[in-house]
Amino acid sequence: MPDAQQPLGVVVVGCGTVGGEAAQLLSRDGEMISRRVGRDLQLRRIVDVNVDHARQIGIAESLLTSDLDAALADGANHVVLELVGGTTLAKEITEKALRAGKHVVTANKALLAHHGPELYAIARARGVCMAFEASCAGGVPIIAALKGGLIANRIDALYGIVNGTCNYILTQMIRNGTSYPDALAGAQADGLAEADPTLDVSGGDSAHKLAIMAAMAFGVKVDFGAIPTAGIDTLELCDVRYGETLGYVVKLLAIAQQQPDGLSLRVRPAFISKNHPLAWVSGPFNAVSVYGHATGHTMYYGRGAGGLPTASAVLADVAAVALGNAQNDFEQLGIWPDRAEPASQLPIDAVRSRYYLRIVCEDRPGVFAQVARILGRRDISISSVLQQEANEDVAAVGVPVVITTATALEGNLTRAIDEVDALDVAKAPTVCIPIVDEHPERVS
Amino acid sequence: MPDAQQPLGVVVVGCGTVGGEAAQLLSRDGEMISRRVGRDLQLRRIVDVNVDHARQIGIAESLLTSDLDAALADGANHVVLELVGGTTLAKEITEKALRAGKHVVTANKALLAHHGPELYAIARARGVCMAFEASCAGGVPIIAALKGGLIANRIDALYGIVNGTCNYILTQMIRNGTSYPDALAGAQADGLAEADPTLDVSGGDSAHKLAIMAAMAFGVKVDFGAIPTAGIDTLELCDVRYGETLGYVVKLLAIAQQQPDGLSLRVRPAFISKNHPLAWVSGPFNAVSVYGHATGHTMYYGRGAGGLPTASAVLADVAAVALGNAQNDFEQLGIWPDRAEPASQLPIDAVRSRYYLRIVCEDRPGVFAQVARILGRRDISISSVLQQEANEDVAAVGVPVVITTATALEGNLTRAIDEVDALDVAKAPTVCIPIVDEHPERVS
Repeated sequence: MPDAQQPLGVVVVGCGTVGGEAAQLLSRDGEMISRRVGRDLQLRRIVDVNVDHARQIGIAESLLTSDLDAALADGANHVVLELVGGTTLAKEITEKALRAGKHVVTANKALLAHHGPELYAIARARGVCMAFEASCAGGVPIIAALKGGLIANRIDALYGIVNGTCNYILTQMIRNGTSYPDALAGAQADGLAEADPTLDVSGGDSAHKLAIMAAMAFGVKVDFGAIPTAGIDTLELCDVRYGETLGYVVKLLAIAQQQPDGLSLRVRPAFISKNHPLAWVSGPFNAVSVYGHATGHTMYYGRGAGGLPTASAVLADVAAVALGNAQNDFEQLGIWPDRAEPASQLPIDAVRSRYYLRIVCEDRPGVFAQVARILGRRDISISSVLQQEANEDVAAVGVPVVITTATALEGNLTRAIDEVDALDVAKAPTVCIPIVDEHPERVS
Repeated sequence: MPDAQQPLGVVVVGCGTVGGEAAQLLSRDGEMISRRVGRDLQLRRIVDVNVDHARQIGIAESLLTSDLDAALADGANHVVLELVGGTTLAKEITEKALRAGKHVVTANKALLAHHGPELYAIARARGVCMAFEASCAGGVPIIAALKGGLIANRIDALYGIVNGTCNYILTQMIRNGTSYPDALAGAQADGLAEADPTLDVSGGDSAHKLAIMAAMAFGVKVDFGAIPTAGIDTLELCDVRYGETLGYVVKLLAIAQQQPDGLSLRVRPAFISKNHPLAWVSGPFNAVSVYGHATGHTMYYGRGAGGLPTASAVLADVAAVALGNAQNDFEQLGIWPDRAEPASQLPIDAVRSRYYLRIVCEDRPGVFAQVARILGRRDISISSVLQQEANEDVAAVGVPVVITTATALEGNLTRAIDEVDALDVAKAPTVCIPIVDEHPERVS
């Protein structure tokens, strides 16, 4: 049990956006935070190969060092905040800190998605803990909810809007009719997208976060490489609009569903009902909806990125270490992936969902019947059809027919789409976007 | 530190809606929950003067008793779930359990609003703890957020929709144009309002919850009796509609704001922008928005009532006791009201807000100038005016003029309204509803 009288020595490694804010928060508001936590949180070292940024933001010179080993050797340092990012150097630093007997708090989703269980096992062997509230949704305490508030629940499903860049871009597309390339450029100009936005817009960042959240929600070991992932980078404005007509809003969703045959984990631009709370989450905000068998639907909303909100979550973990709660959770809870069985992750073909399809064909008699026959043979029922009267412009490039399906196997759908696209009347590849219905709640 | 090998013995006192669900959850899913928590949670006794309901829902006969003293005398019982409700018997039971050295988990907001600090002090004296996640917003882990996720924040404001009955009634009024009496009758028919709904619709229940949340958010001792409270029971449909025209949605809000002169705690039907996330919270759902100086806006959403969601929160607390986290929080955190200074609660006259006013006057030249002069003399600036052309019907009962004000002192407003209502052209008492603007965030 931590000695509440003794200050908790904190080492920040990596003084970039988040590290800088964490250091500043502790410097500026350390007294207030320590009073709230009930234990003195002491910022003792900022470790970085380049301490220029730390100097710029006014961190006391005496705290700055590039010597990680010396910081780890000091017995008055108890917890290391790994805020370097990436999976190479960050992994080395984390392992080193754990082996030196330091608790590690990290905001690094890529590191945990790829190496979480391995690192947790190292921590256990040394009797220290890891905590990572800041890794999944910035300032939103979703990990705390999974470890605490929802612990008496069997989780049925989890849906997350966990990438602020994508949500900002989608909001521009939805509200202002901006095309994807223009919305991306705008996000870059506003500092809300990286110069190289690939990890965000491709869905990779959301998949990292999904891997972490799903492991804790379902108490399983997740194979990150087996998470089917698609981003918003091929999304067309016309599909956003057609979806709207049908009552849906498009969001990049990190999806985890306990399905009859196994656990479906996937990242997809997906349609949700405009009445679902996730549909309201706009701009750079994040939110995670969780469906528990007892609590029903709960949702957690806030800023998913940005130095200060993320630093707030990092310090929440530091507080939990100061209290001993992070250690208790790490040692005792039965939901940690390093102690769990591998999840029975469904391959994408075995996933069940409803779908939105935009099929572009020549405007000829009998075409729709052909499409309907192909779908029917694959056990895919049509829920609704939207086809507008063709004018001459449209006829030249083909007539878009928008179909929503009843629940179908994605494998059947993919093969049906292949057949449709192979028809000689097909004018463009069919667009397919999953529809996520409100999860059925068992709660009265 | 709790011995993780030893089962945690749980006693449920009060087998009503919540107690029954908690007992059933532990009976039916105890193994799954214990596995997730990492410690055996053992339901050992259900104590009630009348065990008929417990029998009906199939609780094992061997667990049922009316003998609280015997249950408290048993050293294998570690935690008592006070699910009796009310402030008399519940207080006796809680004190008795604490003095017997049992941790107490409760869902009882009235008890804590009136006697929280007193009970916490008794718990401390006996080295046990209290936990009450279920008291404020049913299945929504808002107390966990205040004790954990947001602990590194100075809280600037908190806004809660924490009464499901009121929110259900308001949703009917907003969506379907139902009058208040009809919406209340509908809620009663649907089992969403009590036969005597006074505590809900008068705002009293929301005030209880506000007292508990504000104490933890701001780390202060709250004087429950000094919380100005109004309910939805006098709300008229026409004001809902006028607000809508102005871009607002009416919600019964539990409001806590750090204002320049002190802490404003109040419960009010209030207008919020239709773009604020709280405006989307409909039907029986609850949500709490918290503004922290580091994390900015976060919101917590879910089912605020109902046996099973509330039982889920009760068991989250039991899990926290099993882990030792509830004890750590209780012993160490600096935000507990029994160790805090009294809040500098603003009297209602000293509260600053924007306001919606509906003034009903005779349709005569110069009337608006009179009203504007009265407001001006009291330092109240007019932001917008909405007056529709009068037809003969309206003229007979007076012309409604809807005014929104800039930020003003409520005391000034009240006196201005008194003057307006005393004018000989006044045809009905002025209606005044506060407008809650999006809290300014300092977060970049």
